[in-house]
Amino acid sequence: MPNIISRRDLDFLLYEMLDAESLTQKPLYAEHSREVFDQIMETAEKLGENVFQPIAALTDREEPVFNNGRTILPEETKEALDAYVEAGFPAMSFPEDLGGLQLPYLISQGVGATMGAANGNVSGYMMLTGAAARLIIAHGSDEQIARFATPMIEGRWFGTMCLSEPQAGSSLADIRTKAERREDGTYKITGNKMWISGGEHDLSENIVHMVLAKVPGGPAGVKGISLYIVPKFIPDADGNPGERNDVVLAGLNHKMGNRATVNTVLNFGDKGGATGWLVGEEGMGLAAMFHMMNEARIAVGLGAASTAYTGYLHALAYAKDRKQGRALDDKNPENPMVPIIEHADVKRMLLQQKAYAEGAVALCLTGARMIDDEKTAEDEAEKAHLNLLLELLTPVMKSWPSEFGPRANDQAIQVHGGYGYTRDYPVERLYRDNRLNPIHEGTKGIQGLDLLGRKVVMKEGAAMKALDAEIRKTLDEASGLEAVAAHADTLKAYWEKLAATTMQMAGQAAKAGPKAYLANATIYLDAFGHVVVAWIWLRQAIVAARAMEAGTGEQNFYRGKLQACRYFFAYELPSVTPMLELLATLDTTCMEMDEAWF
Amino acid sequence: MPNIISRRDLDFLLYEMLDAESLTQKPLYAEHSREVFDQIMETAEKLGENVFQPIAALTDREEPVFNNGRTILPEETKEALDAYVEAGFPAMSFPEDLGGLQLPYLISQGVGATMGAANGNVSGYMMLTGAAARLIIAHGSDEQIARFATPMIEGRWFGTMCLSEPQAGSSLADIRTKAERREDGTYKITGNKMWISGGEHDLSENIVHMVLAKVPGGPAGVKGISLYIVPKFIPDADGNPGERNDVVLAGLNHKMGNRATVNTVLNFGDKGGATGWLVGEEGMGLAAMFHMMNEARIAVGLGAASTAYTGYLHALAYAKDRKQGRALDDKNPENPMVPIIEHADVKRMLLQQKAYAEGAVALCLTGARMIDDEKTAEDEAEKAHLNLLLELLTPVMKSWPSEFGPRANDQAIQVHGGYGYTRDYPVERLYRDNRLNPIHEGTKGIQGLDLLGRKVVMKEGAAMKALDAEIRKTLDEASGLEAVAAHADTLKAYWEKLAATTMQMAGQAAKAGPKAYLANATIYLDAFGHVVVAWIWLRQAIVAARAMEAGTGEQNFYRGKLQACRYFFAYELPSVTPMLELLATLDTTCMEMDEAWF
Repeated sequence: MPNIISRRDLDFLLYEMLDAESLTQKPLYAEHSREVFDQIMETAEKLGENVFQPIAALTDREEPVFNNGRTILPEETKEALDAYVEAGFPAMSFPEDLGGLQLPYLISQGVGATMGAANGNVSGYMMLTGAAARLIIAHGSDEQIARFATPMIEGRWFGTMCLSEPQAGSSLADIRTKAERREDGTYKITGNKMWISGGEHDLSENIVHMVLAKVPGGPAGVKGISLYIVPKFIPDADGNPGERNDVVLAGLNHKMGNRATVNTVLNFGDKGGATGWLVGEEGMGLAAMFHMMNEARIAVGLGAASTAYTGYLHALAYAKDRKQGRALDDKNPENPMVPIIEHADVKRMLLQQKAYAEGAVALCLTGARMIDDEKTAEDEAEKAHLNLLLELLTPVMKSWPSEFGPRANDQAIQVHGGYGYTRDYPVERLYRDNRLNPIHEGTKGIQGLDLLGRKVVMKEGAAMKALDAEIRKTLDEASGLEAVAAHADTLKAYWEKLAATTMQMAGQAAKAGPKAYLANATIYLDAFGHVVVAWIWLRQAIVAARAMEAGTGEQNFYRGKLQACRYFFAYELPSVTPMLELLATLDTTCMEMDEAWF
Repeated sequence: MPNIISRRDLDFLLYEMLDAESLTQKPLYAEHSREVFDQIMETAEKLGENVFQPIAALTDREEPVFNNGRTILPEETKEALDAYVEAGFPAMSFPEDLGGLQLPYLISQGVGATMGAANGNVSGYMMLTGAAARLIIAHGSDEQIARFATPMIEGRWFGTMCLSEPQAGSSLADIRTKAERREDGTYKITGNKMWISGGEHDLSENIVHMVLAKVPGGPAGVKGISLYIVPKFIPDADGNPGERNDVVLAGLNHKMGNRATVNTVLNFGDKGGATGWLVGEEGMGLAAMFHMMNEARIAVGLGAASTAYTGYLHALAYAKDRKQGRALDDKNPENPMVPIIEHADVKRMLLQQKAYAEGAVALCLTGARMIDDEKTAEDEAEKAHLNLLLELLTPVMKSWPSEFGPRANDQAIQVHGGYGYTRDYPVERLYRDNRLNPIHEGTKGIQGLDLLGRKVVMKEGAAMKALDAEIRKTLDEASGLEAVAAHADTLKAYWEKLAATTMQMAGQAAKAGPKAYLANATIYLDAFGHVVVAWIWLRQAIVAARAMEAGTGEQNFYRGKLQACRYFFAYELPSVTPMLELLATLDTTCMEMDEAWF
């Protein structure tokens, strides 16, 4: 039985629900086949089981150490990443003409789920590297791509995102890092960056920092932000790491979890100025960076989902093994104890984890499939439709797994009882790791503002209409299936209630003002997320119901999907009702709380 | 501004809401006065601020170390406990004729809240010691009291609870530790105990283990359990610690949090048998131990509440200080950034913490006042009424703070953003500490079974009727007060819905069987807890509304109470509705989930 992530479930999601095979019909992915995908997933599984997961406790225990401007990491971290590079994984989803394998993003996210579940702390370096390379490809010059993106695609160089500063975390408008244009066209970068994951280490030959900075005298706020490539070592004429750039490790952040991903404070330009290359145009930095941030946000969601998933499997294994107590109707203390999985409350905790973890992974993979569809769409209207869906769902894919993933890990501890609270079992570590996810790459509050303040209202509600069309498609599919028909009715009611509430809120916004409209945006995000995940669960249930009708030999697996869907609709979705009722009134309790009253 | 616990709020709860002063009218507490209570609270506050809280990061970092059968703790732990003993606090709530101060339990719990917020890891030793002494006083002989309880009241010896074993955590019926009667009347104790907090250390002259064990040949299950005193050192003729008893430290449990409370594995009788003294009668051990467990359960609740409270105050201070972003209707990036407490979502997170933390402390102190009232009641009916209330509310007082306290700590991290995830701020430690509370002293699942399976049905629903009477008293008090009248109506509706749902469930139980009746007991516990805490919030709001009507000079404080109550009723209480709807149907989704479907 797997204890990282269920390969059977990944196959279900990739092939049965999201029909990854159909992607090979598209010209972009025509060279691939199911066999190739399977082989990739197989390699990822082995890498996870044999290399990444076995060192997870160690890479947590042996936290990165600051030593004279360098980061000391356990050598196992480098060994694992070397194996990942050796497998060719960094090139996975890049175009062939850039040396990539040109695999669907969906498959790369299947790998991401596997690595995230095995040891997301360590695989995090590669997630950042892939995102940095993609950012340069999207917005950089051909020369920049060749010089900086290619070595990242090859896995020889790693990448980072340098956005936050000590005084500017969520508020990027207020960054102070300066970029001054030099005569040779490069920029002199000076300033301090905070919370930089992978900011300094010896894991790769070079580190490519993607840095937001402001040209002095430019516009205030976000319009003054530009994007720069600032490598640790400046590439020489042959493209090899040359002279050390003026980027210095000022310190490490000592975190509660997620420790193998070294988190740094970086000083740029302490010795006169770091050299940076402008990506795209001045003032367009934040827009470009959003390309990377959106990807990073989905990756955070998938990481949270995977961390929940592996915790769930650990709890499941423990619950099958651990004997404690007897059935409630068995009053004979001389009867043997039963495995705790037989107790209804333990089943509830496991079902909750299953619903959260599998639902969250399915959500993020659904998003990945949309990215592939957007990339390969031949029809402009279809492309626009998918783009709208992704805009709308990105805050949900980031935040829902980050909220409910940690709750699944919380329940994994609870299933273990006292043992789960000790470091002899992995679940406390997963709980600590996952707590980061509602914070980085845009806090939960920021995601709520993004969803309610931007996404649902963009283009006169076009994104909501796009999602409405998708949900109705699913409802149609469910209509003939007895096993899921009731769920479809329920989802329809919740979705319509959500849409109506959104209209109601928007209707009051003009009069009440943006503060009142957005005062409960985080709650809106939770409600929205639950409805979206109910849709994702219904989609899974439809596939399962069909497979059961077709009488495939794996009734237990499909029954599990149906039962988890039933659980989600009965135990989780109803929590949305009071949230929507609160939201509809634009409740001002929080907004009106005076600082002096606390 | 306090960062441990608000003394103003404690005064509000102790005097304005729970009228501690009226206890001095009772003969038992007639020697005391408000001045004495204030002095005690003052001493506790100083001890917390100057001694316990300053070492909290250190006692977390420097985890107990196992060294050749001994536990090595930072010396600061002993210094803090010595200061606690020096202040005479271990004697606080014991009778004068046993050398105690005979203070109300309520006041001792006010001290407990303060110490729990300052450093509950370290004060935990004293909580266990007090409970062990009280157990001996309640069930032991005069000689046992003099020999073992007195040195604990004096704070010279510490106590433990030895219930769990590696194979028997929640399932005490299955303990295997043996107690064999010797000719001299003592018992030979052999076996292994697990999860023993404070099981071995050099903090006190002696350690008094309260041990559950079975006499071979006795009845199976809980009826075979007896209770023994097993000291680390056997007292000599003068009552001083003498010969070392055969209790050996086998190992330490390495926990995620709550680290200063050393948690041990103990072997009894490895060298032939430990000497134990029977407390009360053979076979009555579990009943006696419940005396200690009930007290420990309320203490766990209060500890969870206090840990939430201090996290809330840290988050509040941070939110007032940290500047980030601007008002949503301020589009000028050149305006200065505002303290994050001005953002509605941050206010929401702080209000949630305030509602959880203050609500949970108020709940536990309400229980403490009930204990005093029960102790001092002259009327048997009144005593029985209070006993029923305490029976019913104990699982709530244990579990509600343990569930929602950690959620408050979670939000305290979120308010801090990335900083909160680092060890430079205390909130991550508090989050780790508090995660223990839903596990020990009866897991949350056990509390749910206790509430729904035993307490609400006991004596034909007499405990529910007792609580009904109390709630109606509060509703009457609210009826004339405009500021809270609407909340009273809401509470009435929820309470009646809860009572009706309980009847509905009980009505189906006969047919559906105990398994189905109890399948969702944990959800029942959450729903029940939220209604009870709404009642507690209404009681606080009534006091605040009256004070505002009377025009006392502290309008801001009282407004804060009213707003937190409004928050709880608008944002939290409505979550109960879908839970009750689910419960009413005796939903079997979890129960019917087959092991093979996971």
